[in-house]
Amino acid sequence: MRENDLIAWFAANARRYSHVPVGIGDDMAGVVLPGTVDQSGAALALLKIDQALDQVHFDLREHTPRQAGVKAVNRCLSDCAAMACRPQALLIAVALPQAASTEMVQELFRGCESAAAAFDCPIVGGDTAVWDQRLAITVAAMGDSRTAPVRRSGAVAGDAIVVTGRVGGSILGRHLTFTPRIAEAQAIHQVADIHAMMDLSDGLAQDLPRLLAASGVGAVVDAARIPIHPDAHTLARTDGRSALAHALTDGEDYELLLTLAPADVPRIQALGLAVELTVIGTITAQQQLVLRDDHGTTQPWPRGGWEYESAKP
Amino acid sequence: MRENDLIAWFAANARRYSHVPVGIGDDMAGVVLPGTVDQSGAALALLKIDQALDQVHFDLREHTPRQAGVKAVNRCLSDCAAMACRPQALLIAVALPQAASTEMVQELFRGCESAAAAFDCPIVGGDTAVWDQRLAITVAAMGDSRTAPVRRSGAVAGDAIVVTGRVGGSILGRHLTFTPRIAEAQAIHQVADIHAMMDLSDGLAQDLPRLLAASGVGAVVDAARIPIHPDAHTLARTDGRSALAHALTDGEDYELLLTLAPADVPRIQALGLAVELTVIGTITAQQQLVLRDDHGTTQPWPRGGWEYESAKP
Repeated sequence: MRENDLIAWFAANARRYSHVPVGIGDDMAGVVLPGTVDQSGAALALLKIDQALDQVHFDLREHTPRQAGVKAVNRCLSDCAAMACRPQALLIAVALPQAASTEMVQELFRGCESAAAAFDCPIVGGDTAVWDQRLAITVAAMGDSRTAPVRRSGAVAGDAIVVTGRVGGSILGRHLTFTPRIAEAQAIHQVADIHAMMDLSDGLAQDLPRLLAASGVGAVVDAARIPIHPDAHTLARTDGRSALAHALTDGEDYELLLTLAPADVPRIQALGLAVELTVIGTITAQQQLVLRDDHGTTQPWPRGGWEYESAKP
Repeated sequence: MRENDLIAWFAANARRYSHVPVGIGDDMAGVVLPGTVDQSGAALALLKIDQALDQVHFDLREHTPRQAGVKAVNRCLSDCAAMACRPQALLIAVALPQAASTEMVQELFRGCESAAAAFDCPIVGGDTAVWDQRLAITVAAMGDSRTAPVRRSGAVAGDAIVVTGRVGGSILGRHLTFTPRIAEAQAIHQVADIHAMMDLSDGLAQDLPRLLAASGVGAVVDAARIPIHPDAHTLARTDGRSALAHALTDGEDYELLLTLAPADVPRIQALGLAVELTVIGTITAQQQLVLRDDHGTTQPWPRGGWEYESAKP
């Protein structure tokens, strides 16, 4: 069973509760703390949990414990960015290999702490355990948002589809060094009505269909407008796959994918963010995903993107 | 480095933030969501993360995935009970072994879901990943409390020390089948001013000193009053260690340890809870921990209790 199917199964089999307006299936969940009201009437606590596993998301044979800690926290914070959420607190659980030294655990913590501090977000609690397996780091985040959180499900026909930064080839190093787009999400959210947003963790090829499915819409994407990272070109020169294929399917970009009214595009461009904002296509009412090349002819949407095929039937 | 020392190091090295009145070191952290006020002026979101690892906290060679899911959730809910917290939402991350079947993942989820539903608590999100290592389940909880959360640090000289239920020998099965004392904590909190509370996860021998250290107090405990579980007696018959030693050091009791004014003891006894409430001793101003036997002579406090010795220096 693939991850999408598992998540759909979880969502279908989880009970519904009235204090959970945003449940399983978005980048974060939204929960109302009972007896709590905010200035506008309903304070949502946004919640997320995310794992970083040794030799899956990082590799301690090549990377330092500090790098692992930074990545574990930033992966979770990238999901906060995806909801235009302001992270307020992190919890961190580590399953430590028996051989872990005190120094290693402290370096891991320093990595977590530095990534969290970059967004003024405290680490408020944690759990440590030791086992004879490899390092697993799990990070949970709680945050809030200035207004209703931006979900995946709000894209409407006619929306411009925007990507921050450049995508593809993150395996060359950016998967460890990326900056979660929290500041960018806040800045954009401040000046424009973001209809739908998510972060690109599994690659545009896989993530865009998720946003479209959540919104019940389709899209036309112009291949030539996809902001391909130089790292994708570097990989393409060695492995014979196209730079575009890398850009679409490599994953771990941790950039934002968002949709908004075309009239809002100049407004967000005018922000002068350090990161590029690129319109890659348009949302359509017809629930189809079309990749258009330079000549206007359509190509098949690549099936890939990073997704584990777990769980045999 | 032992777990206590690691936690102390984390707490000392984590930045302080004004919106986190309860940080690292208690059963849950307490965080104020900015812009949020509750009816009494300050709404605290209580947060906790906890892991359950295959062949550490459960063993898939003997236990079902459903049992593992139940235990993982109940361990976290037991920490909620320890703060007199009402759990409002859970997040669950699973690192799945490659051989995991869909059926196995679904059973695991059903276990989590049934344990959560027993306390009307939704599972609002999660994360799944696959690796070539054993199953790791991480559960994060958010909740609130009716009043200020009950911490470990409020014990004062003269307090009665109370334990719920009976302790020791949980390895015979109760470590999988226990019920988190959420209802009991709520009921007690409703009629009495609980000064300090925690759950017994590592054993009275190790957990009581933590509560005393957090409160800056000592205690006299009467060995004969410790509510020894029949399972501890069963173990004692086979391994030659005393039932009392099992009761003090086995751990995984998931009972509550609390202190309150002696005048409140009759009040909580009058609740008629299904679980026993036993006064095992008294808090003292002198920061010493004394175990008194039947004849009034003092015994050394056992050093044990379940604690990993991870992290070599």
